[in-house]
Amino acid sequence: MNNKIKIGIVGYGNLGKGAVEAIHTTNDLELVAIFTRRNPENLKLNIPNVKALHVDDAEKYKDKIDVMLLCGGSATDLPEQVPHFAQFFNTVDSYDNHAQIPNFFQSVNEVARQNQTTSIISVGWDPGLFSVNRVMADAILPNGENYTFWGKGLSQGHSDAIRRVNGVKDGVQYTIPSDEAIEKVRSGVNPTLETADKHIRVCYVVPEEGADRAKIEHDIKTMPNYFADYTTDVYFITEEELARDHSKAPHGGFVIRGGETSNGHKHIYEFSLKLDSNPEFTASVLVAYARAAYRLNQEKQFGAKTVFDVAPSYISPRSAEQLRKDFL
Amino acid sequence: MNNKIKIGIVGYGNLGKGAVEAIHTTNDLELVAIFTRRNPENLKLNIPNVKALHVDDAEKYKDKIDVMLLCGGSATDLPEQVPHFAQFFNTVDSYDNHAQIPNFFQSVNEVARQNQTTSIISVGWDPGLFSVNRVMADAILPNGENYTFWGKGLSQGHSDAIRRVNGVKDGVQYTIPSDEAIEKVRSGVNPTLETADKHIRVCYVVPEEGADRAKIEHDIKTMPNYFADYTTDVYFITEEELARDHSKAPHGGFVIRGGETSNGHKHIYEFSLKLDSNPEFTASVLVAYARAAYRLNQEKQFGAKTVFDVAPSYISPRSAEQLRKDFL
Repeated sequence: MNNKIKIGIVGYGNLGKGAVEAIHTTNDLELVAIFTRRNPENLKLNIPNVKALHVDDAEKYKDKIDVMLLCGGSATDLPEQVPHFAQFFNTVDSYDNHAQIPNFFQSVNEVARQNQTTSIISVGWDPGLFSVNRVMADAILPNGENYTFWGKGLSQGHSDAIRRVNGVKDGVQYTIPSDEAIEKVRSGVNPTLETADKHIRVCYVVPEEGADRAKIEHDIKTMPNYFADYTTDVYFITEEELARDHSKAPHGGFVIRGGETSNGHKHIYEFSLKLDSNPEFTASVLVAYARAAYRLNQEKQFGAKTVFDVAPSYISPRSAEQLRKDFL
Repeated sequence: MNNKIKIGIVGYGNLGKGAVEAIHTTNDLELVAIFTRRNPENLKLNIPNVKALHVDDAEKYKDKIDVMLLCGGSATDLPEQVPHFAQFFNTVDSYDNHAQIPNFFQSVNEVARQNQTTSIISVGWDPGLFSVNRVMADAILPNGENYTFWGKGLSQGHSDAIRRVNGVKDGVQYTIPSDEAIEKVRSGVNPTLETADKHIRVCYVVPEEGADRAKIEHDIKTMPNYFADYTTDVYFITEEELARDHSKAPHGGFVIRGGETSNGHKHIYEFSLKLDSNPEFTASVLVAYARAAYRLNQEKQFGAKTVFDVAPSYISPRSAEQLRKDFL
């Protein structure tokens, strides 16, 4: 027995694996078990004192796990799993279907209140850290405008779209914020910008042998919804180059607010992330907020919460005294 | 009567004036009175429904003011005023003497707990927003390093030092972060940097007629503590240029953390501010945190608090529902 906060993980994809690594870098959190819908024997975990278990056995760990990190996908896993696990555990998830967040919040909130658990929903960087900055910038500079840029980042959906084009063997797509748009926002003029003005799309394509490259390029650039409204660049590369240069999952972006106080004084508030690995960083955020889920629950703050309800000290492993002395 | 949070201001210098403007841009806060140590008639306020009063009359407003913004200086005003006013009011201050913060916290905490008030200390951007980002970045990427850069900003202390040099009629000094150092930090190598490596100092000097410019430049560049350890540039300008180009009080800076997760994946977390007016922006932060002081007090969270204890939603005028729907 020790005083560490006991963590469980549901789902062992890229996010779950990132969470395992993130927990290992802490001194105050302890990973107890990883739960999977697959045969747990196939996980081939090689982590001392960590069990691989089937999700159906999770309920038995009600008293042995303080916070469950739900590392499934937003499309189908989380809307089902979070309300389920909130019956037994404090939870943290990365639900990112923006339009559905109010409904998701409500369904989790009901279960968590009823069972006196605490669930922090939609944690990560967007939603998550970006959301925190949008709210704080808006509160501090009410006379202004928020801008969010995404990238440089690999977009799974757009990469899939490229691969469906005739003559394309493989490919990836990066969303890249427009330097011009960012500089305009940083100048403080608060321009009107559509998503298509803010981003360009860059595609790296491996053509099939003998394929018509001009036609591939045309088919990509004119694809409705995905590319037609954007400035799109297409580069042809070899399979070897794709494997060598494009196997990471980088991402990031910017939240910028331009605001004015009196006498036309302009202020630029900017937050940005540049991430080598989107899932590993997102997992690191989930793990930090696991502390907050545990602490809020200890304070009997039951129900669903968001990053907006969490004070910075709640995600830190450090004491209030040390934070005031060394970080204020 | 209305439901607005009632605000008082103590001190009517640049910060107090900025607070007046910041309150006017909100819909949920109402300025009731400004308290001064001078003769209140000399304030020449021209603000409907706002009284100018002597500080000694403040106690009478105990039930008419929800939060008092203490807008005095850190050297002598705030260490005395905050514990005094915390007897009667919830307070927000911008105390920025980093080394003395733990003592200051304790002296305010005792008074506030005893009187069931809530005091948020050391609010602004550094200490304040920069501190929040240092703590969050450290919590999320434990394997990494924080860097803080200040500027481009006008430094009052260094400007005063220039003006004491023989042959100098007037002048200003800007602290400017070194582009080279920032780029090194952004590359993720987590370099070892002293304050002098991170900043350069640029001086704009109005020489007295017939003064020896070479000697002035030499005297500035070799001044111990202030300039000798830094890369310092000295430019001579006219009085007209000084008045035209250097009358604002710009400031800002960067908090950057470079951190690593597994497999050497690097992540750059960056927060920055570029401010036309340091006091007006600082005042805007104080005003936003006035909401938090009021709300924490309503929840019976008495005593001294810092920005680390304040969740983002507490500084926002918007409802939890709207924040989840539009900002998450």
